[in-house]
Amino acid sequence: MPADPRTAVATVCLSGALDDKLAAAATAGFDGVEIFEPDLVASPMSPGEVRLRCADLGLSIDLYQPFRDLDSTDEARLAANHRRAEHKFEVMRALGTDTVLVCSSVGADAVADPDRLAAQLHGLADRAAERGLRLAYEALAWGRHVNTWDASWDVVRRADHPALGLCLDSFHVLSRTSEIDGIADVPGEKIFFLQLADAPVLAMDVLQWSRHHRLFPGQGGFDLSRFLAAVLGAGYRGPLSLEVFNDVFRQADPVRTAADAHRSLLALAEATAARGAGTDPVGGPAPAVEGTAFVEIATGGAEPALDDTLAALGFARTGHHRTKPVDRWEQGSARILVNRSGERSTAVGALAVESADPSAAARRAARLGAPPLPRSRGPAEADLPAVTAPDGTALFFCRPGVDADWAGDFRATGETDEVGAGIGVRAIDHVGLAQPFDHFDEATLFYRAVLGLTPGSAGEFAAPFGLVRSRALADPARRVRLALTVSLLRRGEWAPGVPEPQYVALAVDDVLAAARAAREAGAPLLAMPDNYYDDLAARVDLPADRLAAYRELGVLHDQGPDGAYLQVCTEVLAGRIFVALVQRLGDDDGYGWADAPVRMSAHRRRRLARRAVTPVSPTPPSHPAAAAR
Amino acid sequence: MPADPRTAVATVCLSGALDDKLAAAATAGFDGVEIFEPDLVASPMSPGEVRLRCADLGLSIDLYQPFRDLDSTDEARLAANHRRAEHKFEVMRALGTDTVLVCSSVGADAVADPDRLAAQLHGLADRAAERGLRLAYEALAWGRHVNTWDASWDVVRRADHPALGLCLDSFHVLSRTSEIDGIADVPGEKIFFLQLADAPVLAMDVLQWSRHHRLFPGQGGFDLSRFLAAVLGAGYRGPLSLEVFNDVFRQADPVRTAADAHRSLLALAEATAARGAGTDPVGGPAPAVEGTAFVEIATGGAEPALDDTLAALGFARTGHHRTKPVDRWEQGSARILVNRSGERSTAVGALAVESADPSAAARRAARLGAPPLPRSRGPAEADLPAVTAPDGTALFFCRPGVDADWAGDFRATGETDEVGAGIGVRAIDHVGLAQPFDHFDEATLFYRAVLGLTPGSAGEFAAPFGLVRSRALADPARRVRLALTVSLLRRGEWAPGVPEPQYVALAVDDVLAAARAAREAGAPLLAMPDNYYDDLAARVDLPADRLAAYRELGVLHDQGPDGAYLQVCTEVLAGRIFVALVQRLGDDDGYGWADAPVRMSAHRRRRLARRAVTPVSPTPPSHPAAAAR
Repeated sequence: MPADPRTAVATVCLSGALDDKLAAAATAGFDGVEIFEPDLVASPMSPGEVRLRCADLGLSIDLYQPFRDLDSTDEARLAANHRRAEHKFEVMRALGTDTVLVCSSVGADAVADPDRLAAQLHGLADRAAERGLRLAYEALAWGRHVNTWDASWDVVRRADHPALGLCLDSFHVLSRTSEIDGIADVPGEKIFFLQLADAPVLAMDVLQWSRHHRLFPGQGGFDLSRFLAAVLGAGYRGPLSLEVFNDVFRQADPVRTAADAHRSLLALAEATAARGAGTDPVGGPAPAVEGTAFVEIATGGAEPALDDTLAALGFARTGHHRTKPVDRWEQGSARILVNRSGERSTAVGALAVESADPSAAARRAARLGAPPLPRSRGPAEADLPAVTAPDGTALFFCRPGVDADWAGDFRATGETDEVGAGIGVRAIDHVGLAQPFDHFDEATLFYRAVLGLTPGSAGEFAAPFGLVRSRALADPARRVRLALTVSLLRRGEWAPGVPEPQYVALAVDDVLAAARAAREAGAPLLAMPDNYYDDLAARVDLPADRLAAYRELGVLHDQGPDGAYLQVCTEVLAGRIFVALVQRLGDDDGYGWADAPVRMSAHRRRRLARRAVTPVSPTPPSHPAAAAR
Repeated sequence: MPADPRTAVATVCLSGALDDKLAAAATAGFDGVEIFEPDLVASPMSPGEVRLRCADLGLSIDLYQPFRDLDSTDEARLAANHRRAEHKFEVMRALGTDTVLVCSSVGADAVADPDRLAAQLHGLADRAAERGLRLAYEALAWGRHVNTWDASWDVVRRADHPALGLCLDSFHVLSRTSEIDGIADVPGEKIFFLQLADAPVLAMDVLQWSRHHRLFPGQGGFDLSRFLAAVLGAGYRGPLSLEVFNDVFRQADPVRTAADAHRSLLALAEATAARGAGTDPVGGPAPAVEGTAFVEIATGGAEPALDDTLAALGFARTGHHRTKPVDRWEQGSARILVNRSGERSTAVGALAVESADPSAAARRAARLGAPPLPRSRGPAEADLPAVTAPDGTALFFCRPGVDADWAGDFRATGETDEVGAGIGVRAIDHVGLAQPFDHFDEATLFYRAVLGLTPGSAGEFAAPFGLVRSRALADPARRVRLALTVSLLRRGEWAPGVPEPQYVALAVDDVLAAARAAREAGAPLLAMPDNYYDDLAARVDLPADRLAAYRELGVLHDQGPDGAYLQVCTEVLAGRIFVALVQRLGDDDGYGWADAPVRMSAHRRRRLARRAVTPVSPTPPSHPAAAAR
């Protein structure tokens, strides 16, 4: 068994100039890089200087990627391609790298006959070998004749040259087939290089899919641990190298992206080790999460509306923090902390999960590169281990139960008796976190790797200001659930510049009773349009009295395959938070996303009404662009 | 022949709530709307109130779109679908609209047998007819059994019901076939509705293509005037209605989008009339453009660097404006005005095209809804007709030649003799305009419709901070060329927040001689990396002395299929402008986009060097998200 796997990242995964990319890869802890030719061509550093820079940063150069369309039925073009190759061999010598990627040709002049193709590759391998170099031949999924991994292996076997081997790329393989068991039969020393990429399951032209939508392992839908196990099973001992073309990563902070990328390889190696292949650099699996210990709402102001709403929703203020301006509210097993020590607008500040082994969970998170939370940020005095999630939310690990380590930080208020039994809130169902644009996929991987949650339903819906992508994560027992959303593209310049609200969804057993009680106590429930209920009646066969109650209380009813997701939402409270009362009928495992556009429109109307702003200020069409200058 | 075509727009084309959309459609001059069900469901206005609101705005409601998957092999589901239909007929009655769209089913329970399907539609048509309503049946391109226009026509013909007709959607038709001549044989009265959408030519799953990438007519690659001519040829006399699902439009200012949409229908009707079908509401074709009269650089400051650079590039300051702080610079037939009356950073302020009939061109632009330019904006005293382009650039129409109307506004400087013969600049080759994100496709249509330019090469390239989309427009004689670019997604938060520069490309016959002369005169030419020339030598067979001269002077060489595009660029001058010297070899018709990433990297390095800022400030990975809160 090898030691911890060597990790590498292709420069094409990261944004910026070559020097930015190298620095980011080194900061994230990668052992090596693949250098993508356009990054070198645009760089003022000579290949020799790049070699020195990488050495200074502790990075090896594991692969150089200049070749497209090498083989040719046109002898003149083949000669020109060989001339180009000689130039690039010189570059590789100066870079100090010995492996060059050769992709199967997509050109009209690509060689179809496998023996002729093998002979051409053999000829180039001879030239490479003279310089101590070697060729890693890769089947592009859209290659003209060679477009599957076994076709590329057939050509390499026919050529039978020690300086010619395979490059396996998980995207090119898994976008074409799930039959990968044969990989284990390839002699390990003939697999020269391994490129890893995940991708969402999309019905899309494979080239577009590959060039725009690749993801880091764990962010998409491919079974990469099975793939990696097959490659390691064949005896491959080279680096695990990421090659991810992604429109978002191309324009995001490369230091952030590289950290995300490195985490993806660690988590993949951990998952692959769990299948019995390779070594585990993390120490998984993650300790099971057993529930949500508390949600902290951070707010800079006094925000009496927040307290009033929690009270109207049946929460009791059960504790004041001994030293900090933090209140603890409780109902059933739902616990909400309101932390007034912050300076920012009201938002979810922290999420605490109950873990069977909080210390082990935190150590594991650290090994996965989760940024530690500065001590000053915590709402509690107890030394709870904590890390920072990609959107900045603090993530605490606690022992389960109300007697948990953090509970001692609070002294009782004595207010509990006044509030009574609440309105029927049992627990926190889930938390909804709108993500920053650049970090949506990073967040999916983070929660998957750090908490051991499983990505569930993912989708896209048309909201009033544009498309929104959604993704749910949950543990198998559904004790911890998260709903992530992100606005695609940016939000329109014309739309009010408020970020999408976050929310806390509270589980109830009877949403009608809970909503009625909350309304009577003065909770600011959000009204839904009559048209919604007229349409609901046309779609779903509901008793008239139930429909009338829905209409009266603003219940949204999302009929799913296994049940229904019922919710009542409050207005957006101070800042960017609302609360939802949620009842799941049957085996519903959804998040009510079909109703999100209606809810978002209603929230927008409330916001505009409160500000007494006209929804549309119809700019005269003369001079639309003046503001854009 | 009908009068001017009635225009309509589907609410799904526009961003915002229903009321925003209706107001925007009316402001843009549409006669009617299609109401998309989710917009109504999320609206607080009852159907009756929507009817009144539309009447107030002068809009008819031409179509209601609630139906998906109506037919079914499952009798219980069919009954439920009929029940849903009865509900929607009530909504239509309240809306005051008589036509409902019925799409071919995509469900597993879709009816395959055409006679059974026809019978089911006949049954629903009976119910519709009882209420004075009618069904427009449309083949979705991804319908399970019915997915071509002729298949939908076959079903409608079999059903043979007066309340059942066709809805033809140009996307669904043209994404599947270019064989549309048969449409002219359909009886006009059986075409109940016409939906128009353009789209880029993409290799993509048709459903994704349709739901995300539709465009307004004239912005994509479909031959819509041929399609519309066929439908009008059949005798269709209903509205021309737009149905465009587009991720960008969904989040952009709906007033802007609606104006763009309305322009697209006018331009399409004009082009269709030129084929002999329908009436022309615009009065085209556009008068021919005969050249670029001048480019105005608007600058708020004195910007001596700008003057020095123009002088070093061989321009002579030939005139001062009589009353405004505007200088005229000339070389060959290239004319650049430097306008110091503005308040903003240096940018292209105006573009003047020489037109055979400036007044007619301006009248036509006004009929196309081009926003007029406020008088105060003009650099000249002469009453040049002008409009505002989507990115805010002023667009003037002039008579051709140096004796043009605007020339008299300037008095001679007498500096001309000092400057001499220049460096060989013949003319303005083109202007490069980086576009605001929301308005790239709008700009394509604008220049196509208003100037009669033809969209040419379009593409995408990976720039240091993310993908950039490009599109060229030119007149057939290549006397006026524009190069538009736009950064996809937003630019990364990590990247310097400067907008992409615009540029003025100057045509020279010998780029080496021109660049050498410019450099000797002190022009700040941009150096290119050695790696670029090493790679160029590997790709293109160039004489060694030519390559050496390229390297010395920073020439970029983009080898195209018909020649080569050679350019030398200056640094970015004050603000966001640079100048390129351009030589076209052979029949090159390109814009050097293959070299744009190298140029952009070099510009970025110069900017960072001037500001003495370190390219990367490697944020420690602990606490990446703090800034995002």
